[in-house]
Amino acid sequence: MNAPVNKEVVKQKIAESGLVNVGKGSIREVLKLVSEIQSASGVQFIRMEMGVPGLPCSSIGLDAEIEALKKGVASAYPPMEGIFPLKQETSRFLKLFADANFSPSGCIPTVGSMQGGMAAIMVINRLISGKDTTLFIDPGFPVQKLQVKSLGLGLEAFDIYNFRGDKLREKLESYLQKGNISSILYSNPNNPSWVCLTDHELQIIGELANKYDVVIIEDLAYFGMDFRQNIEVPGEPPYQPTVRKYTENCIALVSGSKVFSYAGQRLGMMAITDSLFSRRSDNLLKYFGTDEFGHAIIYGALYALSAGTAHSAQYAMAAMLKATNDGILKFIENVREYGVRAHLMKKVFTDNGFYIVYDKDEDKPLGDGFYFTINYPGFTGCELMEELLYYGISAVTLDITGSEKQGLRACSSMFNPNQVDELNRRLKLFNEHHSIEKDTK
Amino acid sequence: MNAPVNKEVVKQKIAESGLVNVGKGSIREVLKLVSEIQSASGVQFIRMEMGVPGLPCSSIGLDAEIEALKKGVASAYPPMEGIFPLKQETSRFLKLFADANFSPSGCIPTVGSMQGGMAAIMVINRLISGKDTTLFIDPGFPVQKLQVKSLGLGLEAFDIYNFRGDKLREKLESYLQKGNISSILYSNPNNPSWVCLTDHELQIIGELANKYDVVIIEDLAYFGMDFRQNIEVPGEPPYQPTVRKYTENCIALVSGSKVFSYAGQRLGMMAITDSLFSRRSDNLLKYFGTDEFGHAIIYGALYALSAGTAHSAQYAMAAMLKATNDGILKFIENVREYGVRAHLMKKVFTDNGFYIVYDKDEDKPLGDGFYFTINYPGFTGCELMEELLYYGISAVTLDITGSEKQGLRACSSMFNPNQVDELNRRLKLFNEHHSIEKDTK
Repeated sequence: MNAPVNKEVVKQKIAESGLVNVGKGSIREVLKLVSEIQSASGVQFIRMEMGVPGLPCSSIGLDAEIEALKKGVASAYPPMEGIFPLKQETSRFLKLFADANFSPSGCIPTVGSMQGGMAAIMVINRLISGKDTTLFIDPGFPVQKLQVKSLGLGLEAFDIYNFRGDKLREKLESYLQKGNISSILYSNPNNPSWVCLTDHELQIIGELANKYDVVIIEDLAYFGMDFRQNIEVPGEPPYQPTVRKYTENCIALVSGSKVFSYAGQRLGMMAITDSLFSRRSDNLLKYFGTDEFGHAIIYGALYALSAGTAHSAQYAMAAMLKATNDGILKFIENVREYGVRAHLMKKVFTDNGFYIVYDKDEDKPLGDGFYFTINYPGFTGCELMEELLYYGISAVTLDITGSEKQGLRACSSMFNPNQVDELNRRLKLFNEHHSIEKDTK
Repeated sequence: MNAPVNKEVVKQKIAESGLVNVGKGSIREVLKLVSEIQSASGVQFIRMEMGVPGLPCSSIGLDAEIEALKKGVASAYPPMEGIFPLKQETSRFLKLFADANFSPSGCIPTVGSMQGGMAAIMVINRLISGKDTTLFIDPGFPVQKLQVKSLGLGLEAFDIYNFRGDKLREKLESYLQKGNISSILYSNPNNPSWVCLTDHELQIIGELANKYDVVIIEDLAYFGMDFRQNIEVPGEPPYQPTVRKYTENCIALVSGSKVFSYAGQRLGMMAITDSLFSRRSDNLLKYFGTDEFGHAIIYGALYALSAGTAHSAQYAMAAMLKATNDGILKFIENVREYGVRAHLMKKVFTDNGFYIVYDKDEDKPLGDGFYFTINYPGFTGCELMEELLYYGISAVTLDITGSEKQGLRACSSMFNPNQVDELNRRLKLFNEHHSIEKDTK
């Protein structure tokens, strides 16, 4: 029995894409390629390549946004530092669900967390002369590295796989001792591997931030989505783990896209501690016309980047955060579905000869969430990605995430649980074809 | 008779602002200062400092945006290159009202024109190795220079005042001959001076763009707002003048904030010509992971900057542009009020001893529009700005715009025509106080 997608169609579309190696294509490029193969072949793909929210958003946000539009906010510039209710509710949110202290004045809306990361990278790398390099704890979201490169700044990175727990300290120090590192960036839970840093690891990172005077950029895009523990009760443990507990040298990024399913409106929040906000440095003056860090972020970077973020969407986000803080909106409950899907999908993959690449947090098995990582024995990530296209399954390789492991990142968000039999059928076929291949080699 | 605002209050608020020289403060900083003086003194200011639209937006945009939200666009990422109807209507708009050819594929939504400028500056300065400097035709919008500085790129600038007409060619060539200029940036109509480049001057700029291979970044934020000629009839002359007529080496920036009064939603459009879009250079690879200019703008710069712009606002802008292109929405008619206000204000100022700083386009008197420039004999811009605060009038200095002239930029947008007597009363008092001062000096 043949693979479900016509080989010639796939080959032709790959050729047309201009990608020399499809496995090295960016997430958006893969998305485009898969859409074209899908429409040319007529086969409905099981799409796991893009981390898009697959759930509808809450009506609380939508209603607030529509009301704000009706009140006329569309014609007035939003304040550069963000509307006050949004700043206040973000501060409350971080206290209630992460036990983290950030003043409302340090909580600033951005055009998606993406812009928050960009602004942070722009300013932190100019804070101290000579410290112009960001260290990434990989694997990671490729666009954050694109940000650093596009700015012409320095970049270092290592794969955390072999450096969990106490080993993390020595590894980090080997970079920090060089003196050129301004900042450490990671996402937690991690995109793409769904690794979650333990409290012990966060303590190590926080202590080193203090010791070496580097700023931690903590991307909490998947806030609370480590479903192994339920952080949803406001003001009560357990909390979303954060490095803020161990250092004031940090910026947290919260996304409206994932946990609030509000990706379309491009709204994230960056939170800066008071001590970092008020920090001064002459080096900032040259680039941003001010020597104060917080002022450089708002009236330097964010002003230059876009002069604020859509006015009405700020009201949506403020309303969703308020309802969450007040215990009315169950923000985790609404996305727990992703964990259910990942659990189903992982089982089908492992039943058919695949294995999970990143499988443990120190000694505990990984949770089921938005992403997971897979590979098939004997394949590189690039080979597997292309081969799965013939079976109507799409994902991105770990190659583009800074991982040293071979394999793919799969996202559970677009998977419909009623596709589970079809996924099983396709993977079974894949497994049959490739076990035979292996036997005859 | 004393000046209407308590001197001590003004002095105290200036001291609290932390600005060493109020005349050097950014527009947003001045805005904040004036708001504080206003609320502490109880005197309602005549506010001319910020270029905010003072008119409500069209219901066509609002209705389309609300409808899009109800259809669920808030939970889905917008396409990086923008929704197709918006791309198509932007292309039509530029053809119908500027007689300019830009394909829909080259028309890309950005988070305000601000982001369009940022992306253009990021990519153009990496297009050709060694060409890393943007030349500004001043006076100009200060934040565009902040963009260049914050990126650590090169910046040159000159004041156009003494280089109108044929003199512009020699002046531009004196910079272009050095070989490090990648791009020339100006706004037309000009913020802050309301100078409008003539067709003759645009031809010079276009010819030099071709001769020296530099890209023109033409900021059309005030598209069609030179009310001396009515460009409002679709597809018929006169048109918004543009350098596109004379070169393919250009990017045009169109703002949703001014002519469509949609500033709150942060939506602008950048338009790239086909030949520039498809241009390739190895130097781009290092920064953006692609060698094609258009690809670097969309999947390099704009992806890194914010991963797109609010999904629902794209539908608003598409609807407003379509209605404009179809002759239904009278986009110029709606903002002609700014010209009426400027005319009133300029008369009151000149009746009371002030003069217009930038007063001519080559041999023609300047039009009345969104901005005008004023000074009072014997004052520097910084002195005049502070002194007018005591009279309850706020503006920003030309110092921060790269102008070599002394004076202030005044914006007509927030002025209510029923304030004309009050403005006259305050300026009369100012004139009396300062003519006496002059006499007794």
